[in-house]
Amino acid sequence: MTIDFEARRAKLDAELDAADIDVLFLPASQTDLEYFTGLGRGIPSFGNIGYTNHWISGAFFSAGKDPLFVLTRHHQEFHLPDGVIGDIVTATESDDGEEVFARAFDAFSSRASRIAVGGTPNADSCGHESNAQERIAVSGRTWSETTLNLRRYRPEAELLVADDILNRIRRIKDTHEIEFMRQAAQMVDQVMAAVSDHVVAGITELELASEIDLRIRQLGSPSSSFDTAVWAMGPGLDRDASERLSTRALSVGAGVNFDFGAIVEGYCSDFGRTVHIGQPNAEYEKVYEIVMAAQEAGRKAAVPGATGGDVHRATRSVIDESGYGDWFRHRTGHCIGKDVHELPYISEEDETPLEPGMMFTIEPSVFYPGRVGVRVEDVFLLSDSGETVKINELGNEMRVND
Amino acid sequence: MTIDFEARRAKLDAELDAADIDVLFLPASQTDLEYFTGLGRGIPSFGNIGYTNHWISGAFFSAGKDPLFVLTRHHQEFHLPDGVIGDIVTATESDDGEEVFARAFDAFSSRASRIAVGGTPNADSCGHESNAQERIAVSGRTWSETTLNLRRYRPEAELLVADDILNRIRRIKDTHEIEFMRQAAQMVDQVMAAVSDHVVAGITELELASEIDLRIRQLGSPSSSFDTAVWAMGPGLDRDASERLSTRALSVGAGVNFDFGAIVEGYCSDFGRTVHIGQPNAEYEKVYEIVMAAQEAGRKAAVPGATGGDVHRATRSVIDESGYGDWFRHRTGHCIGKDVHELPYISEEDETPLEPGMMFTIEPSVFYPGRVGVRVEDVFLLSDSGETVKINELGNEMRVND
Repeated sequence: MTIDFEARRAKLDAELDAADIDVLFLPASQTDLEYFTGLGRGIPSFGNIGYTNHWISGAFFSAGKDPLFVLTRHHQEFHLPDGVIGDIVTATESDDGEEVFARAFDAFSSRASRIAVGGTPNADSCGHESNAQERIAVSGRTWSETTLNLRRYRPEAELLVADDILNRIRRIKDTHEIEFMRQAAQMVDQVMAAVSDHVVAGITELELASEIDLRIRQLGSPSSSFDTAVWAMGPGLDRDASERLSTRALSVGAGVNFDFGAIVEGYCSDFGRTVHIGQPNAEYEKVYEIVMAAQEAGRKAAVPGATGGDVHRATRSVIDESGYGDWFRHRTGHCIGKDVHELPYISEEDETPLEPGMMFTIEPSVFYPGRVGVRVEDVFLLSDSGETVKINELGNEMRVND
Repeated sequence: MTIDFEARRAKLDAELDAADIDVLFLPASQTDLEYFTGLGRGIPSFGNIGYTNHWISGAFFSAGKDPLFVLTRHHQEFHLPDGVIGDIVTATESDDGEEVFARAFDAFSSRASRIAVGGTPNADSCGHESNAQERIAVSGRTWSETTLNLRRYRPEAELLVADDILNRIRRIKDTHEIEFMRQAAQMVDQVMAAVSDHVVAGITELELASEIDLRIRQLGSPSSSFDTAVWAMGPGLDRDASERLSTRALSVGAGVNFDFGAIVEGYCSDFGRTVHIGQPNAEYEKVYEIVMAAQEAGRKAAVPGATGGDVHRATRSVIDESGYGDWFRHRTGHCIGKDVHELPYISEEDETPLEPGMMFTIEPSVFYPGRVGVRVEDVFLLSDSGETVKINELGNEMRVND
């Protein structure tokens, strides 16, 4: 299964052209570059990793041209086993990074004569070239050091964030992406099924998280897709859901919440279940059913043209009506792909209409310290037929361990 | 042991004043904010985590004033168990983030009458206020979305990166920081000693890495300080050191390289040893001694006033003279603290004079695919007496397992 990066870049070209963006810079630290070129991100680090001239790493894009990569020697030698398609300008540690970056930018933008997608110069873009203000774009998490250097090289240019364009392309998943997401969902299904047997009194939350992280990587994922969380709630357990992991041992009577994900070809899963140790009390059983019903209400509301806000309200209303609304304290979900949280969000404020090809989580919860902690999370696909379908296959009936 | 954040901010105030910086913004995604206020970073994520208005999270600083935090509701409710010192402006998901951020910035900068540190207005700063161009600074990894919003609010201001100022303060560690770094070093010493017993034929690199990650967290570290690496090299093993971890099993005759770190109070360790399975051959033994001698040569060269370049050359010369220079392909090390890689770097191009209070790694290697793979890494402190001392206590004699 080969990803067609040229097709992705053709979509990008069309968007850059429509937005009159002359040059776009995408940094190597973010997933946009991986999406459009295959240049993979690294495994993230709690403490920053840094090299001389690190800020230059990324690539320039312009409609109708191959990207130009700017990379440190270190990046090239240690993190590019498969190379890239396109030219590379390299900065060694001893080079003047600002000079190298400026030179690459000049070289790229001088041959960046904007042409209409398809290859024919059109009147608008030619007019733009000769008269209008130059427009240079970056993605929203590009480092300020990079952004401000671009500013310095082109003080007269308009400098803007292109996240709306990038998201508009990325939020619709194609068949390859859906397949990768499905594989990542199957990984977490499989890991959850295996780990569930070990959710017993005496084991620590950390030991369970560690087993999850190991199993995910044994299945081929380079790491977990975000920090694996395992936390017990229930009668007599005062902890709040904001403490996502501890070294404490589990005990009978706890509801154990799971939140974790795996990675396939850079695509992230995000998943949740709740396992109870010992027989749950009546409130716990009731809340469990409420949360599962809330997820199903959200799924049904996720039709083409509905917004993330609509889905959120449909999900929340089930929990509100049951009287537990105060303990559902977060948004219902988010789109997902190469990033764990992608726009649009399944959240009160989001007014983006949902479209077929979007993939998103629906993850209601009731976290009531000292009483009950229940969550469920699956990834869903809004299919071409207009129905929202769950791509995880593991059931969400209540699992009760001895 | 309580960190004196006010003393740290007093140093920052003095630097801001000296650099004529009116307002500094530090984002919540980076360690500078943690260093100056205690507002901790989260555990990093392979796929981005994002919330509506996420880009506003951070704090404004100005000489002589308390910081003003700008945070999302989500950040405040789920990631601030201990609160912060100073005022907070909050943005909910439904707020207009740009409006909230602009309002906070205006409120802060209008009461940002710059005064000389100590409380007395001085002629220079008053002159600056009334006449000169406003100067607004950010740290180098601040997101472009934040940076460009600041630009929009103050189109006439000079916008600059303040990493030189921030690093000048952070690169000298005080007694508290040295103690945290020592504890983090002891953690990895202890974990390495325990894991070494399990470096035997049949176990996978991933299983060893997983055990390291678990043990580090059992000792109280929120995660490993960067991606734990375990990789076998030696005769007949063609892998390059750029592949830092695999699911393959170890075999007799392999030299197993370790690279990992723990975290204490946000301070990172970074550590390396090599363990051999079965009796090493003559070349392996020779190279092992060369690499240890190179580290010691680097340590001796690290005196006050020497540069990172000097230390690098002293380390490299031992390996060059032995004929293995082509296989020592990276810089010798880097300063370390709340970030794993901090400036100055122990690297050819670095001309910053070393000073007492700096802590840095010395980590030479010989990675010769198909022949030998040896590395060692410790954290060192340039002490007040002018001597560079190793803070890890685990010896680096060759460990040979059956």
